[in-house]
Amino acid sequence: MPEIRQNIITRQWVIIATERARRPDQFRSAEAPRKDLPRHDATCPFCPGNEAMTPAETLRFPQAGPWQVRAFPNKYAALSAEGELARHVEGVKRTISGVGVHEVIVESPLHNTSLALMAEAEIEKVIAACLDRYHKVFSDHRVEAVTLFKNHGVAAGTSLLHPHCQLIGTPVIPTEVRQRLERALRFYDDNGSCIFCTTLNEELKDQVRLVAENKHFVAFIPFAALSPFHLWIYPRRHNASFGMITADEISSFARILRGVLRKLHFGLNDPDFNLVVRTAPRESNHIRYYHWYMSVVPRLTKAAGFELGSGMYINVSRPEDSAAFLRGVTAE
Amino acid sequence: MPEIRQNIITRQWVIIATERARRPDQFRSAEAPRKDLPRHDATCPFCPGNEAMTPAETLRFPQAGPWQVRAFPNKYAALSAEGELARHVEGVKRTISGVGVHEVIVESPLHNTSLALMAEAEIEKVIAACLDRYHKVFSDHRVEAVTLFKNHGVAAGTSLLHPHCQLIGTPVIPTEVRQRLERALRFYDDNGSCIFCTTLNEELKDQVRLVAENKHFVAFIPFAALSPFHLWIYPRRHNASFGMITADEISSFARILRGVLRKLHFGLNDPDFNLVVRTAPRESNHIRYYHWYMSVVPRLTKAAGFELGSGMYINVSRPEDSAAFLRGVTAE
Repeated sequence: MPEIRQNIITRQWVIIATERARRPDQFRSAEAPRKDLPRHDATCPFCPGNEAMTPAETLRFPQAGPWQVRAFPNKYAALSAEGELARHVEGVKRTISGVGVHEVIVESPLHNTSLALMAEAEIEKVIAACLDRYHKVFSDHRVEAVTLFKNHGVAAGTSLLHPHCQLIGTPVIPTEVRQRLERALRFYDDNGSCIFCTTLNEELKDQVRLVAENKHFVAFIPFAALSPFHLWIYPRRHNASFGMITADEISSFARILRGVLRKLHFGLNDPDFNLVVRTAPRESNHIRYYHWYMSVVPRLTKAAGFELGSGMYINVSRPEDSAAFLRGVTAE
Repeated sequence: MPEIRQNIITRQWVIIATERARRPDQFRSAEAPRKDLPRHDATCPFCPGNEAMTPAETLRFPQAGPWQVRAFPNKYAALSAEGELARHVEGVKRTISGVGVHEVIVESPLHNTSLALMAEAEIEKVIAACLDRYHKVFSDHRVEAVTLFKNHGVAAGTSLLHPHCQLIGTPVIPTEVRQRLERALRFYDDNGSCIFCTTLNEELKDQVRLVAENKHFVAFIPFAALSPFHLWIYPRRHNASFGMITADEISSFARILRGVLRKLHFGLNDPDFNLVVRTAPRESNHIRYYHWYMSVVPRLTKAAGFELGSGMYINVSRPEDSAAFLRGVTAE
């Protein structure tokens, strides 16, 4: 019989659909979608030699010699870098001027690589660059929240295949972020403990949904995963904000992220996926009830009318089965 | 400059991204995706002659002679028709047995038609069938909410191309539905009026986002549309539940739905889309603060990491421009 499980953090219900379930290996694609990409593409604005095709750099690692990581404003920014914040309310119509920051971080000079194929030290540099830009974006007084994300592949919504991630600093705290904060606060009121720490402790005790762990991080499939192979990477240390990550944690994070992405890459043949850092908005960096983490969302199935209409998801893969499958993929 | 607009009903913020905006006609696909489908497909379980390939019928119009509309349980149901409702709570893990109802309504004997290409009288029959099954699904004592939806095309999540819609009766009120109810109630408290009636009145006054209207219904692009050509069809009469639609309203609904879908079909070359009926859960049929309506969501762009991470959407089409474009499509 199917099971309906609740995501304790969002309170979303997920149908774990056993009748239409697929075995984990059935999500493996027949062909790797990016296997024929060239190492360098002369028309790609993110490839070395085409630096003039992007807006002015905001970060370059290393500063001298050929770059490994570069950041710059998104040429087609969703929000305007110029202009002041203004609110306008007229009846039920509410508008804010679309100001904010939208940056791109190119993760490698190689057009055809991905985090799964990069060295640990290279991924550390990418995370360090994200952290640098994260603080810089927050230093803009108009920004109230920063979303750090990556779209890997066309199904994940990317338009440029060269490996990169993005930051958007918005002049509002997104409603979904507010709801997460409110729910986490309510759990803290009711239980006297952080909902994320509690979840992590239960997962470490249950074992069955664990995928990988190291000194500072634990990767697992959530009990109420919204979609097949949907993963969470939690820091063990209670800390509300990605911005407070330590140098030692960055190494540990790079290692576990690489390990998880290699399991997906080799186990499922390079699936498209999104990465999202869920972190507290600016004013909540030290709060006791919130805890930052990363969501890894492989795009193996599509949300359809039922999901749009109800906000409930149908997951055709049992979290325990996907976790066992990924634990079995040796990709070191 | 981009604008950030708030959906007053969900409180979601949407970035109307002028920097990356496309003209309405740029969303038209080069080729109609379904133009080469046959009228009849011998392998399709929904085609006439293959009735034995589906579970036992729950509805057939007309009862005698060749059918025009058929309903039956989904062969790969997301929820189990058998079994009793049980809840299980263990630490942060919450589970409900996956029981409920999942039905399919085949809209036409023709494999290659769609609501846009059907006659008004045929669409009336489909809506009448939906209403009949909607009441029947609610008569199951385990069901707390019904989601009525349609997936048109692969990008909208369909696996079978033969025109059909679906109903899922869930043993919980989905979290998103509860949130809508709570927000609508708060608006009613604050303003003494229905948030949907108020929105409709403002749209009728503003005119610029209207797409079509008739005796009982109004179709418009929401002020904070989440994605290009995202449309709402509102009944003029305040009524919380789709289940309370009258016979006269069904005619009017069939006419406006056909008109809107023809504008999309001919204006954008048969785009993939989802339809969703947003209606009150069982116990709230007569409430003063809720109002049923239909969402039409063309799947022309993809939600990516930013949307996953923030719950905010980036819409690359101005609602006023899309509405003007659709008003200009004559498809009668």
